[in-house]
Amino acid sequence: MQTFKPKPYAGTRNSQSPYSRRDAFHSSATRHRISAQKPLTTKRVADHTINKNPHIRIIPLGGMEEVGQNMMAFEYGQDIIIVDMGFQFPDENTPGIDYIIPDTTYLQEKKENIRGVFITHGHYDHIGGIPYIINKIGNPPIFGTPLIRGIIMKRQEEFPNLPPLKITEINEKSCIKLGNFTVEFFRQNHNIPDCVGLVINTPVGLLIHTGDFKFDETPIYDKPTDFKRLEEISKKGVLLLMSDSTDAEIPGKSISEKTIMENIDKIFQKTTGRIIASSFSSLLNRIQQIIHISEKYNRKVAIAGYSMRTNIEIAKGLGYMTYKKDTIIDPKRIKDYQDNQVTIICTGAQGEPNAALMRIACQEHREIKIKPTDTIMLSSSIIPSNQGSVQALKDILYKQTANVLHYRMLDIHSGGHAPQEDLKKLIQIIKPKFFMPIYGFYSMRRVHCMLAEEVGIPKNNIVIGENGQIIELDQNKIELTKKRVPSGNVMVDGLGVGDVGQVVIRDRQALSNDGIFVIISVVDGQTGKVKGNPDIISRGFVYLRESKDLLAQARKKTKEIIEKTTATTHPVNWDYIKNNIRERIGGFLYTKTARRPMVLPVVIEV
Amino acid sequence: MQTFKPKPYAGTRNSQSPYSRRDAFHSSATRHRISAQKPLTTKRVADHTINKNPHIRIIPLGGMEEVGQNMMAFEYGQDIIIVDMGFQFPDENTPGIDYIIPDTTYLQEKKENIRGVFITHGHYDHIGGIPYIINKIGNPPIFGTPLIRGIIMKRQEEFPNLPPLKITEINEKSCIKLGNFTVEFFRQNHNIPDCVGLVINTPVGLLIHTGDFKFDETPIYDKPTDFKRLEEISKKGVLLLMSDSTDAEIPGKSISEKTIMENIDKIFQKTTGRIIASSFSSLLNRIQQIIHISEKYNRKVAIAGYSMRTNIEIAKGLGYMTYKKDTIIDPKRIKDYQDNQVTIICTGAQGEPNAALMRIACQEHREIKIKPTDTIMLSSSIIPSNQGSVQALKDILYKQTANVLHYRMLDIHSGGHAPQEDLKKLIQIIKPKFFMPIYGFYSMRRVHCMLAEEVGIPKNNIVIGENGQIIELDQNKIELTKKRVPSGNVMVDGLGVGDVGQVVIRDRQALSNDGIFVIISVVDGQTGKVKGNPDIISRGFVYLRESKDLLAQARKKTKEIIEKTTATTHPVNWDYIKNNIRERIGGFLYTKTARRPMVLPVVIEV
Repeated sequence: MQTFKPKPYAGTRNSQSPYSRRDAFHSSATRHRISAQKPLTTKRVADHTINKNPHIRIIPLGGMEEVGQNMMAFEYGQDIIIVDMGFQFPDENTPGIDYIIPDTTYLQEKKENIRGVFITHGHYDHIGGIPYIINKIGNPPIFGTPLIRGIIMKRQEEFPNLPPLKITEINEKSCIKLGNFTVEFFRQNHNIPDCVGLVINTPVGLLIHTGDFKFDETPIYDKPTDFKRLEEISKKGVLLLMSDSTDAEIPGKSISEKTIMENIDKIFQKTTGRIIASSFSSLLNRIQQIIHISEKYNRKVAIAGYSMRTNIEIAKGLGYMTYKKDTIIDPKRIKDYQDNQVTIICTGAQGEPNAALMRIACQEHREIKIKPTDTIMLSSSIIPSNQGSVQALKDILYKQTANVLHYRMLDIHSGGHAPQEDLKKLIQIIKPKFFMPIYGFYSMRRVHCMLAEEVGIPKNNIVIGENGQIIELDQNKIELTKKRVPSGNVMVDGLGVGDVGQVVIRDRQALSNDGIFVIISVVDGQTGKVKGNPDIISRGFVYLRESKDLLAQARKKTKEIIEKTTATTHPVNWDYIKNNIRERIGGFLYTKTARRPMVLPVVIEV
Repeated sequence: MQTFKPKPYAGTRNSQSPYSRRDAFHSSATRHRISAQKPLTTKRVADHTINKNPHIRIIPLGGMEEVGQNMMAFEYGQDIIIVDMGFQFPDENTPGIDYIIPDTTYLQEKKENIRGVFITHGHYDHIGGIPYIINKIGNPPIFGTPLIRGIIMKRQEEFPNLPPLKITEINEKSCIKLGNFTVEFFRQNHNIPDCVGLVINTPVGLLIHTGDFKFDETPIYDKPTDFKRLEEISKKGVLLLMSDSTDAEIPGKSISEKTIMENIDKIFQKTTGRIIASSFSSLLNRIQQIIHISEKYNRKVAIAGYSMRTNIEIAKGLGYMTYKKDTIIDPKRIKDYQDNQVTIICTGAQGEPNAALMRIACQEHREIKIKPTDTIMLSSSIIPSNQGSVQALKDILYKQTANVLHYRMLDIHSGGHAPQEDLKKLIQIIKPKFFMPIYGFYSMRRVHCMLAEEVGIPKNNIVIGENGQIIELDQNKIELTKKRVPSGNVMVDGLGVGDVGQVVIRDRQALSNDGIFVIISVVDGQTGKVKGNPDIISRGFVYLRESKDLLAQARKKTKEIIEKTTATTHPVNWDYIKNNIRERIGGFLYTKTARRPMVLPVVIEV
């Protein structure tokens, strides 16, 4: 294990050697180095903070009203630092969308003030927005641990036209001074290695940003939670704690990875057939566990799924994953081994239709076909919007093997976030003056506030911010101001970023409910008569071949509507006619079917 | 409480007095009465069963690959009986659909053989299909307990044009002989009163159909599970047990309603503000609990939501719900009472946008506005596809009051289905020769099979049927045959039943992903030239005003495609041109946007 062993990177512009506390925090050398990359602009910007009443402005841009697209800015005078730059996956309210990223208009307008971006760990809800956002805000330097850097760089390969990123590696001893901010780091346990929390030293006091975390005193591929370090930080006096609320509604404590490991081990111990284990490709710790247990039971491991292979390669390359030279085999070679010598690790535990596990289950995978003696292990939690597809996957699997294990049946998965008891413990250790829950839906953050009150934080010292809302903090008070910056969901759809807005989404929803009904009429400009019969194109409304009467009546009515108007008005108001068709044909279709397709009249004058 | 007190109904054609075991099972009088309603046809139908190898055909039509639309037929010679006739709510795979009902083609073809329909309880996944199906299969007599009858009749009011239903009330002592089948009943506990399981006496042996059930030795408004009766049935020798699998993946035993009652009581005891309790309107037992506890703590109860009011009225009218004369108040009168004297019971615990609770939470309800001192109790489980809307609801509620309680935080709700330990116990009591899990997704039924094996049913005596698959049963064997009847989802959308099929659904899904792009070109038939510029209508694809370039290029390309062909071919193949536009404009749009809207070319020759 090489966690936090800093590795200078060659080949990247502006890569910095890791900052140690000594050579950065106590000298100005680093600052100048950073400043040299991005000299402070001489243009005066409105200074809200320094003059009269020095305060920090905290501006959450994403992750405060959802799980995902995490991004937060800290501003003091002419300095801005950013923590995380994530995206969010779409749900039933955003049909056809690829990703959702935060609105960064405010930062775009102040890009000359941005000193740097700190990434807490390598999951896409914390890094996924980088390719879409970083250039809009002036390509500022990014700071992250080696694994974070590795994952970001790999992803960036999918965007070959973007200018190179400036990523500086940090470790738990690093200290980065950027303008008025000095940022230090502490290790966090999560379900991917190399996570950090941030200690942000500011002119008004010390701020803690936890990133995603859980406590684990007996983790498997990581050091245990560094309570000593947390206590040292606490002793300095913490002005504000911002803590991960994702599991604030879950009672109790985290299940340690040690317990998970033991349970997975038991499954391997008693299984005589092949084991097919599926998880998120980003849950590197879980994947490492399965590889190591496979080695213990003399199983070779075949990897199925592009993202799984890629992530394992990155983690292996950086020393965050270890396995024997001959453990990993090509899926083609599975047949050369006995069933009890094979583990298959694959993507697709969420029932994604094109992922490896679904293809394996449907016997559509080229190298891997499921057998009745296979044991399937679904080792990840289920994203709520994927419940339906996971059920479909389970049904397909169960039709072929009775041995389907998932985390609700057995502790073979543990989330990456601290539940209630651990959240309270963190607050008790840090003893912050002020508290602000971050990450997650309002309900999660609200419950987190109640936990903070339970362990003694006064109600008035707790705030729940919203995306886009400016929170002002000084030594004596934290205030949810009424000031706002632009915020909201920016949708990424294909090559477009932000060009799909609420109008397009609403149209998609309407189309998916009752379809579309286009009526095209050609009108003789001389006589005002409709030539022939109007054409109808409809999709998603009724099965046309079985609705000939309905269509004939709609054509007839359209013709009547047009000719009645053209016969009596002059000049003809075509918009009036179109509105009339829209309303009356819409009404007619509703009467006949109780459905409301989108009616689009086209009237062509020839 | 008047559970199972039979009540003859006036005003319904063919309503029968309740059959007691004595006057029906041991005489042929009943049979003749029933036969008189629907004389056996003289037309000979293929007789699969009686002649050579007498067996029962069991034909699941719905509920075997889903949760919902439960319906199953039993056939022997020329007699068919049906159990349940439910619908299912749509999900993300069936956009715009109202309900899904089973395919009843097979029964329509054999309607003269249908002797009756037995309904196990009054939930819509067991009765919802009746208005859409019953007339197609010849309006056969329906048998159900008084509450089932009440709920069916109330629903039928929404379909005033349908012929009257023939519903006969039954109770736990009834015995209905219909052709070769004699059906008896036993009480079941669920989360609505007046549920039954069926004992189906057939020429090959005795079959048990559980309906929905859970065991409860200390229920609140119901008699405890009648284990004695179950043992008596068992003693007769049960050939086949068909048992509810909905919670077969849940370990342990049911939480008794007594525990739920105590927990709700504790909440009332310590609450000084108003209590707003939300649940499904069909969970009559839970609603009754909340009303009684309100009375205990001197609270008046206001009901919000149409279906909640209606269901309470039906249940009260039939004696399945009791409360003091002045307990229920009009929501307008809430303001006349102190906060600690008011309970509000409302619909909307699933976050439905138009239900009472959402309107209350958004301050849009006419009579009820939420206050920070209100305590909200969400007392129902969450349907997986509603997770998103429930989260939105919780967020809105938490923004207004910290007192939000839901069943994951406290046992204030218990499901209506037996989990694993209870399922095993039932099998151990009934000791059937054969076992078939019913109700639920394949994975649930498969796990149920494993439970049956655990308690000693031989693997070869267990079958898992599919919708539409004919299962043949005789005294010695149960067989999943290869014979099938038509099965699948029939979609109800507005006034249409079955007219929305896979083509329409696929179009809706495509439209919701990337929208539609209609290009209309008017071509001069003489010259082959496009007149003016093609028109483009697009919805759900891009924001048109910001995509002028893209549209201009698409117009230009379309013109080129058309004119190139009209200039060189004669006569013009308009289909070729349209396909060409569809493909090339589709490709062009994909290159520019990485989106694939549905491209619909319209070419008008003038």
